[in-house]
Amino acid sequence: MTTPTLLVLDAEPLPRLGRLAGRVRIEHADGSTLAERLPHADVLLVWDFTSHAVRRAWPGEGPRPRWVHTASAGVDHLLCPELAASDTVVTNARGVFDGPIAEYVAGLVLAFAKDLPRTLRLQRERTWLHRETRRVAGTRACVVGSGPIGRAVAGTLEALGVRTALVGRAARDGVHGPEDLDRLLARADWVVAAAPLTEETRGMFDARRFGLMQPSAHFVNVGRGELVVEDALVRAVRDRWIAGAALDVFTAEPLAGGSPLWELDGVVVSPHMSGDTVGWRDELAAQFVELYELWEAGRPLENVVDKRRGYVPGH
Amino acid sequence: MTTPTLLVLDAEPLPRLGRLAGRVRIEHADGSTLAERLPHADVLLVWDFTSHAVRRAWPGEGPRPRWVHTASAGVDHLLCPELAASDTVVTNARGVFDGPIAEYVAGLVLAFAKDLPRTLRLQRERTWLHRETRRVAGTRACVVGSGPIGRAVAGTLEALGVRTALVGRAARDGVHGPEDLDRLLARADWVVAAAPLTEETRGMFDARRFGLMQPSAHFVNVGRGELVVEDALVRAVRDRWIAGAALDVFTAEPLAGGSPLWELDGVVVSPHMSGDTVGWRDELAAQFVELYELWEAGRPLENVVDKRRGYVPGH
Repeated sequence: MTTPTLLVLDAEPLPRLGRLAGRVRIEHADGSTLAERLPHADVLLVWDFTSHAVRRAWPGEGPRPRWVHTASAGVDHLLCPELAASDTVVTNARGVFDGPIAEYVAGLVLAFAKDLPRTLRLQRERTWLHRETRRVAGTRACVVGSGPIGRAVAGTLEALGVRTALVGRAARDGVHGPEDLDRLLARADWVVAAAPLTEETRGMFDARRFGLMQPSAHFVNVGRGELVVEDALVRAVRDRWIAGAALDVFTAEPLAGGSPLWELDGVVVSPHMSGDTVGWRDELAAQFVELYELWEAGRPLENVVDKRRGYVPGH
Repeated sequence: MTTPTLLVLDAEPLPRLGRLAGRVRIEHADGSTLAERLPHADVLLVWDFTSHAVRRAWPGEGPRPRWVHTASAGVDHLLCPELAASDTVVTNARGVFDGPIAEYVAGLVLAFAKDLPRTLRLQRERTWLHRETRRVAGTRACVVGSGPIGRAVAGTLEALGVRTALVGRAARDGVHGPEDLDRLLARADWVVAAAPLTEETRGMFDARRFGLMQPSAHFVNVGRGELVVEDALVRAVRDRWIAGAALDVFTAEPLAGGSPLWELDGVVVSPHMSGDTVGWRDELAAQFVELYELWEAGRPLENVVDKRRGYVPGH
């Protein structure tokens, strides 16, 4: 058997693939060389998960990798129709980000409830101003996205006493279907977007849906920027349809310096880092190495994406 | 039976004692009139729990209230030797602040782990700067104070996966004694002060104890400012003996405008409000009314403070 070729769509720092040394020929590509190298690769590791190069470079016909793995939970940046239609297997980093993102959401929910951004603002002015803040226990959350991230978010919020409803693509045990979404949004104190970006979810948080929410509600986006109609969100916060938002993802990243979101009262902007805790890159690399060993042994891969749906179908 | 006299040491807004109307003669006092009115009162409600007037005004001899209730968890502001030696019963607001304070501590722990203060700072500069943050699950907390507040803090942190050790006045089931404190401080990621202020706890967080902590550790004070030697804390944060602190209580409140704590990098200053969630005043008043009805019926009071120890002895 010839040594397989693993092509890595690079980002700094490079992945630690130590255990694979000698068992695989590792080649590297960036956006400009990917198209030329893809046909000769057996496996593609999309280490630069911010790149959309795979969509552009994927060969329509002829030789192509049999397996593509992306070091991200979302696969929206690589799923082009040709890849979706091919017999190439796509896997993702399911599992790595769940706990970190759940903690990030809990932290932002608590920060809003305890008025922490204002506390920090008053501190800068050396102003002692007592306020009454909110309990989190007993409030209601609506978490949109019932995959591992959404479920981890729900579990952590419930551990804090928040009554949490999960909304998925279809109703199932413990998960509401889309038909319940509007009703759940209307009574939620916290609306969390943790869904994959698909044709069904793109722009789902629009003016109408922000209009359903309570003026005291906060919106938290840890999914994808394109789940949200950003202009509608800006207006909803500015006009106090909702109380505020914590946004870790944006339609265009990095967020443009001129975006009104940076300075909108009640909005917290973070740079797409909610899932990235110390050691995350090593964890992503280790996860790929484990999958590689399954692939090498001819065993079924885990975290296989349903390319038609755009995510790994859940339990 | 003559109508009992309830003297209220006032603060705005006044307590809602509606249910007691007609059953008790309500009189009011402030710091300047307390000494004159105390001898004629059967019951004293210390509604202004920021005042130290009771210590000054408590009669050494002669008539005095048979019962003093304070609308606070701590009793350090009223326990003078004469009151401690008398047969007057002292009760506190045990139970009202546990959940709110636990949420506040969890919120600050998450904010530090997720680097939220810096996120907000970068946002003001419209700077997109990805960082790796910390998991909270798997870290270690040392909560000093094993009363209801300390136990609620521990419970909430444990719900987030934090391995939490409680330290109390004496070792008992699930609680470490003071002999374990230094060892626990040395390995904690989060040190939470939630102890009552007594002669044993005053100044317990001093230069030596901050010196035991890890450079990555954060200190959270939701107990009393005097638990801490404030100068030592300032130096510990400034010299990076510890990574930071969230302080809701201070030796002198409001915190003086000239205190270095306001601008110390890594320190969050909040104005003694961690337990004060919407409705807290009504809850405090309702708690007093319930205790009053026990007292009126000649039944044993709840939340009775051990005046020698300075807190309500625990389970």
